[in-house]
Amino acid sequence: MDRIESPQNPRIKTAAKLRSSRGRHQSERYLIDGVRESLRAIASGAPVETLIVCRELLTEESARELQDAAARKKIEVWDTSPMAFAKIAYGERDEGVVAIARTQKNNLDEWPQPATGSIYLILEGIEKPGNLGAIFRTADAVGVAGILLASTYVSPENSNAIRASLGTVFSVPYVMTETPAAIQWLQKHDLRPFAARVQASHEYWDVSYFSQQERAPVVIALGSEATGLTADWQVPSIPGIRIPQAGIADSLNLSVAAGILLYEVARQRRIQMPTISHD
Amino acid sequence: MDRIESPQNPRIKTAAKLRSSRGRHQSERYLIDGVRESLRAIASGAPVETLIVCRELLTEESARELQDAAARKKIEVWDTSPMAFAKIAYGERDEGVVAIARTQKNNLDEWPQPATGSIYLILEGIEKPGNLGAIFRTADAVGVAGILLASTYVSPENSNAIRASLGTVFSVPYVMTETPAAIQWLQKHDLRPFAARVQASHEYWDVSYFSQQERAPVVIALGSEATGLTADWQVPSIPGIRIPQAGIADSLNLSVAAGILLYEVARQRRIQMPTISHD
Repeated sequence: MDRIESPQNPRIKTAAKLRSSRGRHQSERYLIDGVRESLRAIASGAPVETLIVCRELLTEESARELQDAAARKKIEVWDTSPMAFAKIAYGERDEGVVAIARTQKNNLDEWPQPATGSIYLILEGIEKPGNLGAIFRTADAVGVAGILLASTYVSPENSNAIRASLGTVFSVPYVMTETPAAIQWLQKHDLRPFAARVQASHEYWDVSYFSQQERAPVVIALGSEATGLTADWQVPSIPGIRIPQAGIADSLNLSVAAGILLYEVARQRRIQMPTISHD
Repeated sequence: MDRIESPQNPRIKTAAKLRSSRGRHQSERYLIDGVRESLRAIASGAPVETLIVCRELLTEESARELQDAAARKKIEVWDTSPMAFAKIAYGERDEGVVAIARTQKNNLDEWPQPATGSIYLILEGIEKPGNLGAIFRTADAVGVAGILLASTYVSPENSNAIRASLGTVFSVPYVMTETPAAIQWLQKHDLRPFAARVQASHEYWDVSYFSQQERAPVVIALGSEATGLTADWQVPSIPGIRIPQAGIADSLNLSVAAGILLYEVARQRRIQMPTISHD
């Protein structure tokens, strides 16, 4: 295929429209910026359709890795001039590759039965892409089985969320849903979440996460940066957990709070579920 | 004092120069944006000299709180028109107050002897103001006794760091220093830090932080986002700790990693140092 020289090229103009929320909704596609992110998206099976590359900006190694990945998955590659690429590149990111991917339509009903010892995360109303991305990194590190984004304004397909996640938005399963549907899913699988609340009576480090039933999956629910979880989670059947705080500020950064809780669950799982079992 | 109407007012122009790194260095002053941040700075004893306020933008309650705080600490207040205030306001922040404070010259030699059961944090080479601010929030919540910023490029007096910290940069003691001076300080007080390293052999949750000596202070050292701690911390006398990670990404967000480590230390301190002592 010929190299695209002009920023006025129709394909470039169509791709650039995906920078707007409206453009993404209309075409049900979004952009992935950067070498690492694009490679992780492809490796994780995200539906990448096109790689827009600018060889002048890529290192030789990156160009080869991208070319190999595209060939393996039969992904179309557009070679572009620096001027044409600049029309698509995001902010100061000039790594030389932007991928076009189809928006994922994940469905809670299609999720598998939660497995023994697995960890799930519910995030309600999160507003900041940077927090969402950082939480995906932690979820990836802990091996979270799935994230339910309940009534959440920012998508993991947001450029800043992808960037902050280092591409882990492609490896950790998630669904965009609403709070009632998330609660229904929990009920269907007989799962009781632990709800992070500033006023909860139990400190998170006093809770035994795997003691309810034998190795039942653990679900942690966290609310928005500004107001926390909605009243839907403040019911007697849902235990609240609190991160004790001594200082002048009223709350931890949301992604830090998620990290503290997820790692305490992982720490307890390790103690209670040795990797070598003699059952 | 008369209200400042013009954006060309010499005081406004002088204050606006503090938005640049050069301006801050030359005048040894910096700006604090926002109501909560300004109040926390004053309450924490930061050397605030001036409050620049725009009453059209302030809520009544905020205006009264700021007025009271200024009167108590004899801080000069400049009333400004919206146009004059806009010349100083930071980005989209239009809360109606910016404070001018003197740069703090903290000195490691003047720090008190580390107390029993206290927690210190060493941050080397941190680059992102958002991470620095989020770490201060966690440090505030855990009651960290002091943060040593070793060879670090971003100052807690940076606007974005102040903002991400919710003003906790004013309540947690810190010094800007260099790595050799930080190591000397540790040696002087006979403190052995735990160095967070991706390749360390000990997992952080297997380490007993308060067992070395009876309730000795605990020091956690973390390196930069990109490259971690320098070789200065990779010596046999400094134990390394690692946060186990299962996923595709190679590291957690730095402020998340700091949160996980600090809260594990706090969790162990609570178990080993009950608040009610019968000694």
